[in-house]
Amino acid sequence: MNRRRLLRAGVAGALGVGAVAAEAAPARAQAKRELRMVTTWPADFPGLGSAAGRLAGRIGALTRGRLTVAVHAADSLVPAFDSFDAVASGDADLYHAIESYWLAKSPAYAFFSAVPFGLTATETIAWITSGGGQPLWDALSAPFNIKPLMAGHTGSQSTGWFTREIASAEDLRGLRLALPGLGGRVMRQLGASAVALPGRDLAAALAAGTIDGVEGYGPWHSLTLGLPAAARYAYYPGVHEPGTILSVGINRELWPDLAAEDRAAIEAAALAETLTTLAEFETANARAVETLRGEGAVEPRRFPEAVLAAIGAAAGGVVAEIAAGDATTAQVYAAFLAFRRSAVTWSKVSLHAYLNARLLPFPYGAPPP
Amino acid sequence: MNRRRLLRAGVAGALGVGAVAAEAAPARAQAKRELRMVTTWPADFPGLGSAAGRLAGRIGALTRGRLTVAVHAADSLVPAFDSFDAVASGDADLYHAIESYWLAKSPAYAFFSAVPFGLTATETIAWITSGGGQPLWDALSAPFNIKPLMAGHTGSQSTGWFTREIASAEDLRGLRLALPGLGGRVMRQLGASAVALPGRDLAAALAAGTIDGVEGYGPWHSLTLGLPAAARYAYYPGVHEPGTILSVGINRELWPDLAAEDRAAIEAAALAETLTTLAEFETANARAVETLRGEGAVEPRRFPEAVLAAIGAAAGGVVAEIAAGDATTAQVYAAFLAFRRSAVTWSKVSLHAYLNARLLPFPYGAPPP
Repeated sequence: MNRRRLLRAGVAGALGVGAVAAEAAPARAQAKRELRMVTTWPADFPGLGSAAGRLAGRIGALTRGRLTVAVHAADSLVPAFDSFDAVASGDADLYHAIESYWLAKSPAYAFFSAVPFGLTATETIAWITSGGGQPLWDALSAPFNIKPLMAGHTGSQSTGWFTREIASAEDLRGLRLALPGLGGRVMRQLGASAVALPGRDLAAALAAGTIDGVEGYGPWHSLTLGLPAAARYAYYPGVHEPGTILSVGINRELWPDLAAEDRAAIEAAALAETLTTLAEFETANARAVETLRGEGAVEPRRFPEAVLAAIGAAAGGVVAEIAAGDATTAQVYAAFLAFRRSAVTWSKVSLHAYLNARLLPFPYGAPPP
Repeated sequence: MNRRRLLRAGVAGALGVGAVAAEAAPARAQAKRELRMVTTWPADFPGLGSAAGRLAGRIGALTRGRLTVAVHAADSLVPAFDSFDAVASGDADLYHAIESYWLAKSPAYAFFSAVPFGLTATETIAWITSGGGQPLWDALSAPFNIKPLMAGHTGSQSTGWFTREIASAEDLRGLRLALPGLGGRVMRQLGASAVALPGRDLAAALAAGTIDGVEGYGPWHSLTLGLPAAARYAYYPGVHEPGTILSVGINRELWPDLAAEDRAAIEAAALAETLTTLAEFETANARAVETLRGEGAVEPRRFPEAVLAAIGAAAGGVVAEIAAGDATTAQVYAAFLAFRRSAVTWSKVSLHAYLNARLLPFPYGAPPP
């Protein structure tokens, strides 16, 4: 426990003792704590900043104010991408972010955010919650002094917006893309260059011609960020990130120091937030697709199969390569592959087969465009 | 408030006042209540009885014991299918069940359980949570004195187990099926007879030849119930129930009488349970498919397209017919159709397109069988 935490715990402890004397209840149960949550997004960013705020509010409500979570927007308390280090050191108590931002800490974090050609939202949730993912995630983050939890999910994403047509894998060569994480590495294998840019800068960069394409935000965020006016071609499906986990990382000295009921409250709030975020993204994206089509401006195009196959082959190589780098990542990769295999087998006779069947007879009126 | 509830509230109130005097805290906050949850499943039934128990435990933990939920298995406190009436009258405080059991109260309950050729798990969760479903559900249940919440989800289901091959829609004619709810009504349109049987009786009935097919439990429950040994043909996909909501119904006089924090705790527990159940079903079904295949006994077959089209056409008719029966159901149906339309449009360029692409290049080794 570092000095800063000791000081804060001391204050909380003193309050707790006072409460005990007055109310004859356990000291720990009465201690009030203010926790500082750092995030990697602006406070008002739809779906992400709002998720952090809702999560913080729910933790406060479920602990009846024993825990108060103050949310610090990106770059306010610490620079956005220092959030991991801030929580590890105890300078902050928890972060709300996407684990792929920490690939430099360990490439295994890819498996707890999004993997190209990996698991869908439901499959990811199943793997983390009951398929063995959480213990692996705990083991990955423990040496960094962090206790991780899933606390949001974006659902399916689209591939991206391009200023040029992509008719073959050759057309990707030389493109300048705004595409962070593993998706960017995959595109580099195919001859593109890939950089990370803040969402608010994407439309301007596309319009100025400094980049030729951007990563697949869903239609909801595409509209928010003004992408349809800046790029003519919207491609799907989002194979680079089939669905992205939002996560909370909690300082691992703080975690066992919380009352069991407060840990249960944080865990329940994180599960509830995962479901709420997923529902919000799916609903808003479904409405945004209709808006895009209604305005007549954008007709999403499917990537040609040869392009998908080229991206898939490159993705397999990139992921195998990062997995070969260290024992921890190799262990997570093996578990992920085993789960993925059974999930694909199940999907083929359940969800995927159902989605195919649903388009066949379409008993509830004319199929949508 | 009926007499029984008044008496119980009186006891809780008295305890609360005593607690106030000793602890100087708000009376309402300190009142402890034991709530009686009736369910429609055996206590130990995997995925369903276990969900009710886990939900009850989480409500207790999140309220730090202010609320204790005693779970009563099917047919113990009241007959299973009297659970709705028991909660409506206040003889029980809440139920954990599937809303399709209450179709005789209102056919609109179909939309809050499962609709043939309807929404997937993620789409259902989106509709209820952020797509307008919850207010419609509240309005449906209020006249019955019940506050409903989603509190579990089964994920995708399989169509079913049959003792005969289904090569055409004609082969459904004359079949005796164990298939409750709307799925049964759809099959009756196609010339089958359909009855409801408890899960534990299905294998024996199939083996004895008194029925020719049973509804599509997923592979997890198919193994639990011994269906593979009793029927030769496993068909997919599960178009009759593409994903089923588990629900909690709470007595609507009790609900506003609870402290705001306790209502928040129940809502968070229900959201967490929805995610946890879905994860458990998806994980267990994925493993069970591999078990079924590994044993070499069962090769699931896809329904021929003509059979799917016939079921789809019948389903469209059955659902439109129930919707025409009353204004409430018509209103829910219209909202459901609108959401379904945008969900299908979104799925075609997101999840469905991704699942198609994932099978194309399959970058992580040979595709599963």
